[in-house]
Amino acid sequence: MVVVMTPGATDVEIDAVITRVTDAGGEAFISRGDTRTIIGLVGDIDRFHGLNLRALAGVAEVVRISTPFKLVSRQHHATMSTVYVGASRVPIGPDTFTLIAGPCAVETAEQTLAAAEMAKGAGATLLRGGAFKPRSSPYAFQGLGEDGLRILSDVRAETGLPVVTEVVDVADVELVASYADMLQVGTRNAQNFSLLQAVGECGKPVMLKRGMSSTIEEWLMAAEYIAQRGNLEIVLCERGIRTFEKATRNTLDISAVPVAHDLSHLPIVVDPSHSGGRRDLVVPLSRAAIAIGADGIIVDVHPHPETALCDGPQALVDGDLRDLAHAVRVLPPLFDRAPALPESQV
Amino acid sequence: MVVVMTPGATDVEIDAVITRVTDAGGEAFISRGDTRTIIGLVGDIDRFHGLNLRALAGVAEVVRISTPFKLVSRQHHATMSTVYVGASRVPIGPDTFTLIAGPCAVETAEQTLAAAEMAKGAGATLLRGGAFKPRSSPYAFQGLGEDGLRILSDVRAETGLPVVTEVVDVADVELVASYADMLQVGTRNAQNFSLLQAVGECGKPVMLKRGMSSTIEEWLMAAEYIAQRGNLEIVLCERGIRTFEKATRNTLDISAVPVAHDLSHLPIVVDPSHSGGRRDLVVPLSRAAIAIGADGIIVDVHPHPETALCDGPQALVDGDLRDLAHAVRVLPPLFDRAPALPESQV
Amino acid sequence: MVVVMTPGATDVEIDAVITRVTDAGGEAFISRGDTRTIIGLVGDIDRFHGLNLRALAGVAEVVRISTPFKLVSRQHHATMSTVYVGASRVPIGPDTFTLIAGPCAVETAEQTLAAAEMAKGAGATLLRGGAFKPRSSPYAFQGLGEDGLRILSDVRAETGLPVVTEVVDVADVELVASYADMLQVGTRNAQNFSLLQAVGECGKPVMLKRGMSSTIEEWLMAAEYIAQRGNLEIVLCERGIRTFEKATRNTLDISAVPVAHDLSHLPIVVDPSHSGGRRDLVVPLSRAAIAIGADGIIVDVHPHPETALCDGPQALVDGDLRDLAHAVRVLPPLFDRAPALPESQV
Amino acid sequence: MVVVMTPGATDVEIDAVITRVTDAGGEAFISRGDTRTIIGLVGDIDRFHGLNLRALAGVAEVVRISTPFKLVSRQHHATMSTVYVGASRVPIGPDTFTLIAGPCAVETAEQTLAAAEMAKGAGATLLRGGAFKPRSSPYAFQGLGEDGLRILSDVRAETGLPVVTEVVDVADVELVASYADMLQVGTRNAQNFSLLQAVGECGKPVMLKRGMSSTIEEWLMAAEYIAQRGNLEIVLCERGIRTFEKATRNTLDISAVPVAHDLSHLPIVVDPSHSGGRRDLVVPLSRAAIAIGADGIIVDVHPHPETALCDGPQALVDGDLRDLAHAVRVLPPLFDRAPALPESQV
Repeated sequence: MVVVMTPGATDVEIDAVITRVTDAGGEAFISRGDTRTIIGLVGDIDRFHGLNLRALAGVAEVVRISTPFKLVSRQHHATMSTVYVGASRVPIGPDTFTLIAGPCAVETAEQTLAAAEMAKGAGATLLRGGAFKPRSSPYAFQGLGEDGLRILSDVRAETGLPVVTEVVDVADVELVASYADMLQVGTRNAQNFSLLQAVGECGKPVMLKRGMSSTIEEWLMAAEYIAQRGNLEIVLCERGIRTFEKATRNTLDISAVPVAHDLSHLPIVVDPSHSGGRRDLVVPLSRAAIAIGADGIIVDVHPHPETALCDGPQALVDGDLRDLAHAVRVLPPLFDRAPALPESQV
Repeated sequence: MVVVMTPGATDVEIDAVITRVTDAGGEAFISRGDTRTIIGLVGDIDRFHGLNLRALAGVAEVVRISTPFKLVSRQHHATMSTVYVGASRVPIGPDTFTLIAGPCAVETAEQTLAAAEMAKGAGATLLRGGAFKPRSSPYAFQGLGEDGLRILSDVRAETGLPVVTEVVDVADVELVASYADMLQVGTRNAQNFSLLQAVGECGKPVMLKRGMSSTIEEWLMAAEYIAQRGNLEIVLCERGIRTFEKATRNTLDISAVPVAHDLSHLPIVVDPSHSGGRRDLVVPLSRAAIAIGADGIIVDVHPHPETALCDGPQALVDGDLRDLAHAVRVLPPLFDRAPALPESQV
Repeated sequence: MVVVMTPGATDVEIDAVITRVTDAGGEAFISRGDTRTIIGLVGDIDRFHGLNLRALAGVAEVVRISTPFKLVSRQHHATMSTVYVGASRVPIGPDTFTLIAGPCAVETAEQTLAAAEMAKGAGATLLRGGAFKPRSSPYAFQGLGEDGLRILSDVRAETGLPVVTEVVDVADVELVASYADMLQVGTRNAQNFSLLQAVGECGKPVMLKRGMSSTIEEWLMAAEYIAQRGNLEIVLCERGIRTFEKATRNTLDISAVPVAHDLSHLPIVVDPSHSGGRRDLVVPLSRAAIAIGADGIIVDVHPHPETALCDGPQALVDGDLRDLAHAVRVLPPLFDRAPALPESQV
Repeated sequence: MVVVMTPGATDVEIDAVITRVTDAGGEAFISRGDTRTIIGLVGDIDRFHGLNLRALAGVAEVVRISTPFKLVSRQHHATMSTVYVGASRVPIGPDTFTLIAGPCAVETAEQTLAAAEMAKGAGATLLRGGAFKPRSSPYAFQGLGEDGLRILSDVRAETGLPVVTEVVDVADVELVASYADMLQVGTRNAQNFSLLQAVGECGKPVMLKRGMSSTIEEWLMAAEYIAQRGNLEIVLCERGIRTFEKATRNTLDISAVPVAHDLSHLPIVVDPSHSGGRRDLVVPLSRAAIAIGADGIIVDVHPHPETALCDGPQALVDGDLRDLAHAVRVLPPLFDRAPALPESQV
């Protein structure tokens, strides 16, 4: 940590900083510049934060240098992690490329099964589908709830695909975890710390979507909340951030994949459906995601997107799905990744 | 609602849109342009949403025209609302200007009482203070929990100031409502719909902070979630949005005050402390908030900001607090507002 | 300047940094932390920049501490500046509040004179009006050019109001300066460095609009370009930045006024017309600008906004103009400012 | 174009809109909704813009439907264009993938030649290099000017690589065009309309960088300015947009490639060096650019990045350059593109 003093900071003010740091058991090194003095701190960073140095007279800035996250950081865990999902242990990690696909929302048993078959045909090894839907409007379709979970469970039995589904409420975590193989925390709950802590104790892997206005650092801090409760089975999901551009629903921050891989050992998947919000962008963005080194993608498919209750405009249909199937089969090997297969089938 | 077809849309595609709309009991009016056809829809907007017209072949865009919120909209409730807080019924609304002040976090009984006395001395009629703190880092101070609520309750007894405090978890809503006079939903929970629904049933007024990346429309939709559960005692709070500018923690969107007042009958307060994140901006931003027509402000005060466990750098101290006290006494009358007084003292 | 090394930086890498700094005549102070080493530099900052330390092996970050601007900085010029415009020397500075008003675009002599009379009636002491208009579309009205300048000059003769008008091309600077009393550099040219240098030599005061995506620091650096060519008669103009919010054309960054006043001695005016893009926001935003300490505002007025060739939707008409006139007369004195009067009439 | 009336619009107000439209030779179709009336317009869009309908009483919004650009639009030119650069006619277009590489700034003849040899060795067929550098600070290195152009010209003679270089001032367009094979307009000049018009008449191809806060539509409108002056030899360059994320200098908007390809027939290249501002991101972002269908990339290389006068931290060195060379040779054929070769060598 570095404390930057204001140009006019007095010796008394500088001494006050040093005293506070050394009283807390830290060491302080002073550099006196032509216009400013800076003070480097050595010792326990967390304790320094508690000192609230920024509030001292004469202090212009306190620059943090150490990474604020620990358990999810590569500094403390250099090897990339693989997360295994479901009884058949489908891997998400550095050696494979995983396609997660399914309907945005579970509507009926027929629709979910049809979508799952489409997904599986395209190479998906995990089924996504929403039973609890967070919607901007209280008047929009909110999902089938436990009925939806039951449908997902039945479709898993039928197809063999483990299930990823969103949880939006602390009170539902246990219920959702009893049906699902992986719990998803959505973008609107990316800093709902109670929910993060709850899924940190649920005993199932978690897919953590990036908040639409979260920095990569805040996203990793959110993952740290989950990890701190004992759950390191976390998959990060980049799903677009909010910018001024209006041609797409969100702006996919493709750079986030290598940036987060550099900072954290957790696997990262990309959501090309919700970031663009446009069907014609799903396959191009999926290709970009594979090429940049994502560990997987999660896409919307729907047997009849024109009647979908949620996000129909971005669900893949026949032609596009064939293109996607081709991409996830052909491209990953070029980047030293195998298409994901359950461990039981390897 | 207006459906805009793609330039090459066929008659069959156009007819498909019309059929779907009329089958749903709506009316459709066609305008054939030189390059495109547009179709105007008349009828029940909510039902049209369910039709998922955007997913039909040949449809380029569906433009919504009606306002998506109802209960909080001025279209359905032209008169501006006043929300009354606490047993003494402190008003927040169009005729008054309300100062809400207190420590960012409750740390000790002494600190909270001292801050409350400072607040009261400056003209505050409501006490803010956090017992449950949502923090980006799981390693940061998370608040005193129920102990903090008890301190706030004691300080209310001592000072007569009703208490505003944040709730971050559905499971705590009842507990917090049993101590507090007004519940606050923070920026990170602005689209935590479960929490919004829970405070919609808590029987106490709610202060709803704007999500740091919420549009004004999404913010009002979040309020609609609360209102839909029967609670219309909602105060909106503009607290800055996330932009590229780094000189301030967030960018206070001062225009949001007149824009939201135009769309909604709910009162709006401004948080000049968290938007700027800098003590020297609190008084200038407070003046701007009064001048633009905010119904109140909510500010951080702390007896010893240099030792504050949370957000010390922005807490007001002596000199600034005197300036603030002056501003909230002198300026509101120029804009036809009285300094807020409990109804019991009017 | 502080050099932050990567966690794994070797002694050889640390020495390489120190050697390069000391070879360049600087001094380096080392602080070895538990995970990282940081090096504080003392000496000529500009020379350090040339060293490109960030490109050295083992360097994680180079944090600049000194302000990058000099001539426009308060560090080198603590007293706030006043800029005087026109033969009658209308002041823009800390003691007054200046209303600049007129049509967005000069269309005809009649329209410009009528708008100028409206402006003057409302308390304006400077006339704005565009002869060269930068438009997003090449098919939109681009302004009358020199004919427009001649009209402005005639209207100045008639009304006594000095003229502020935009220049968009280096080749036109001399021409525009021969007619205008103050040159405006628009938001799209905020980092057109050739134009900034050209107006730095034009011998007339300059109003520099903030780039719609410029940080406050970049804006002041742009001003430094003008100052460096010998022209310190610069007025900054905050006109809104680009964000995700769609209810307003841009988001007025009202905090920029106190932030820039803290960093620079230059006066700052606010443009409430172009930031919001909505007539109903002009008066509220103007009140906020006065209250927060702006040195003036610049607004669009038009005798017949419904036929305006440019930005009609935001031009003030009768009722609003009366409200604005009232605000600029009554509010500034509360903040220790006089309504601006030409020096000749003081 | 669709005119949306306010909820309370009167028949008189509706009639006023219709009269204005029909007086201008257009047709108007009315749809009366439950809360609002909307009016569809058919006829000459440009003339409708001149009518300034938004300024009429009772008008809430005017929604444009036709694309605002023509010459660069795919609606008027369905086949994708190829731009050929230099005497050897190096193609940039749908059938090839073009690597443009070289030093950010020309510093010396030796450095430029060495960088060009590195570029050529990696597969580059065009040399980039800046002689005129737009820098945020007036105190930073501004480029060698005409001396730099002469060096680039000499290096072209030596290596056979046609030259792409930036022009920042209308007054220099002729000079730069006399040396360069392709002129670049930088992000800070993306809406410098005078410069756009000047390069529209320069007789050489133009690379147009996206403004860091330009929407894709505004970017294409900027291209339209060039095209309107008779120059359709335009290559678009996506180089990152400004967002709240701080881990990268800008956020590469990778979706802009398919979105712009859908709207315009112009080729698009990606700049992975300036978007990320980090060397370790250049190769991953380049791979993503190839995979998503970009027509080329433009990257910084420097023989000694640790002494580069400009942007050293992102210049590629040996190991990375080999990875890049591999990527541009192996990946494009998978997406039906050949590595670019001068037409003379095909």
